[in-house]
Amino acid sequence: MSRRADHAVPDLVERARAGEVRAVARLISLVEDESPLLREVMAALAPHTGHAQVVGITGSPGVGKSTSTNALVGALRAAGKSVGVLAVDPSSPFSGGALLGDRIRMQDHASDPGVYIRSMASRGHLGGLAWSTPQAVRVLDAAGYDVVLVETVGVGQSEIEVAAAADTTVVLLAPGMGDGIQAAKAGILEIGDVFVVNKADREGADRVRRDLRSMLALGDRPEDAWRPGIVKTVASAGQGIDEVVAELGRHREWSQRTGELGRRRTRRARVEVEAIAVTALRRRWDDVGGRHELDDLAVDVALGRLDPYAAADTLLRQD
Amino acid sequence: MSRRADHAVPDLVERARAGEVRAVARLISLVEDESPLLREVMAALAPHTGHAQVVGITGSPGVGKSTSTNALVGALRAAGKSVGVLAVDPSSPFSGGALLGDRIRMQDHASDPGVYIRSMASRGHLGGLAWSTPQAVRVLDAAGYDVVLVETVGVGQSEIEVAAAADTTVVLLAPGMGDGIQAAKAGILEIGDVFVVNKADREGADRVRRDLRSMLALGDRPEDAWRPGIVKTVASAGQGIDEVVAELGRHREWSQRTGELGRRRTRRARVEVEAIAVTALRRRWDDVGGRHELDDLAVDVALGRLDPYAAADTLLRQD
Repeated sequence: MSRRADHAVPDLVERARAGEVRAVARLISLVEDESPLLREVMAALAPHTGHAQVVGITGSPGVGKSTSTNALVGALRAAGKSVGVLAVDPSSPFSGGALLGDRIRMQDHASDPGVYIRSMASRGHLGGLAWSTPQAVRVLDAAGYDVVLVETVGVGQSEIEVAAAADTTVVLLAPGMGDGIQAAKAGILEIGDVFVVNKADREGADRVRRDLRSMLALGDRPEDAWRPGIVKTVASAGQGIDEVVAELGRHREWSQRTGELGRRRTRRARVEVEAIAVTALRRRWDDVGGRHELDDLAVDVALGRLDPYAAADTLLRQD
Repeated sequence: MSRRADHAVPDLVERARAGEVRAVARLISLVEDESPLLREVMAALAPHTGHAQVVGITGSPGVGKSTSTNALVGALRAAGKSVGVLAVDPSSPFSGGALLGDRIRMQDHASDPGVYIRSMASRGHLGGLAWSTPQAVRVLDAAGYDVVLVETVGVGQSEIEVAAAADTTVVLLAPGMGDGIQAAKAGILEIGDVFVVNKADREGADRVRRDLRSMLALGDRPEDAWRPGIVKTVASAGQGIDEVVAELGRHREWSQRTGELGRRRTRRARVEVEAIAVTALRRRWDDVGGRHELDDLAVDVALGRLDPYAAADTLLRQD
């Protein structure tokens, strides 16, 4: 019962909740490593979650995501809010050197105890992706950060899924980046709650905003529907950032009032629970009572003795 | 029992096996659409599979994948083999216009009944990816094509997985494309059975080959291990392509002799069976006896009343 047993889960959770950065870091490492302790960690965190506003930030490379995130952290701090940042690269199987390099700009906030910044390497398999981000979010939420920013690296399908799992999703665009049409094609118009046209001092910013406005068809929405704001910013100069913060607040208020917040969180939890259950099943199939059921079935399918659907039926019956 | 009931599965399968292209196309459309008929289709195809050599082709954009595939089809035809081609874009949620445009070059073979070419749109979710490609391969295999070429579009993690699921995997490189080091970083050295340095008339081709050779450490392999060939080609001029075909034959012979072929096919079947089983379970969880078990659990998790592991346990116990 020594107080030095700093790997004990209840102690770690308590210290994270008391604002100890090293404990927060350790808990997120347990998430990244898919530690067997996670079960206990998540059980201990659960009652303390639900306070933070989880904000997803996505957009094509080159729109100024890191600069915008950095500026947003500053503005949120000025508004008295503590901020956790997760930079996630779901499409890379490698822990990202470039990503970490990018983080250097975030050193603006390195000495601020109200800011915690973490790059997350992804395992490159969907199970890990589906649960590592929400679990890391849960750590920061339980640790008491008012806002958790989840910044994704690209605009692939999995990045969009990560960003869309937030309470509020910010989509960044910039002039000359292929404009709004590109955004429509990438499927990010549907997921944006707040649109930011960054680098608004450049030629074409007004056109991007105009295109966005017409594609979003804001006028056609029902009375109580959400109407995404479109904010022009120059993140490198801090321009327009307070307006983005205001839009985050407006969306938070709307989504609480309409019940959308609960629905989104339920959807996020659903994906997470399903991923955990599927992974548990896969482990079981790998070794059913010492026999390798799935392997035996796969041999039959490979030899054409059995079709894959019949094999799957057999697997599920054994369960 | 009208012979005009051309959607009946046994009839479709019979016609595909008799070489009717429209029947082959219809069966692959059933795969793409995740048709409820698939179960019946796969059961009917199973006894007729196992003949084709399934060849995965991968490499970065710009190395000349389409041109190489095109040249390879020509050389295989000249060697008397019939060829099915699947062009798969696993990372895109869209059916690819650009991809189909690329296919136009393949029109070289449009009037040849010994060649079937198909671009496959992916559903953008792992379940679909994990089973749609092997199922489409199974259609072409059962239809009697001697070689099935699976060409992937990019070099993301999922492209690598698709290519690596083949009997034989060809990795394409080209000078000036970031060379072999890039290949090592992308994780494609491990999956290559045959390496092709395309655009070998350009400066730097020998260096790419030299780099590859040292990175593959061919000398350090055990006696009976596979030693990947490294072939220089100029696909646009048809140079070196016969050598690639010879390497495909050499790998086929080696993998049959050593049992590697059976192991790879078993591995492929395993992924497919697992994906089908998981999808079946997900459908079940969505609606267990009229109740939405998973939804109820997700609400509890979202509200912090339950942790996601405990919720997953409950889900699996209900099963």
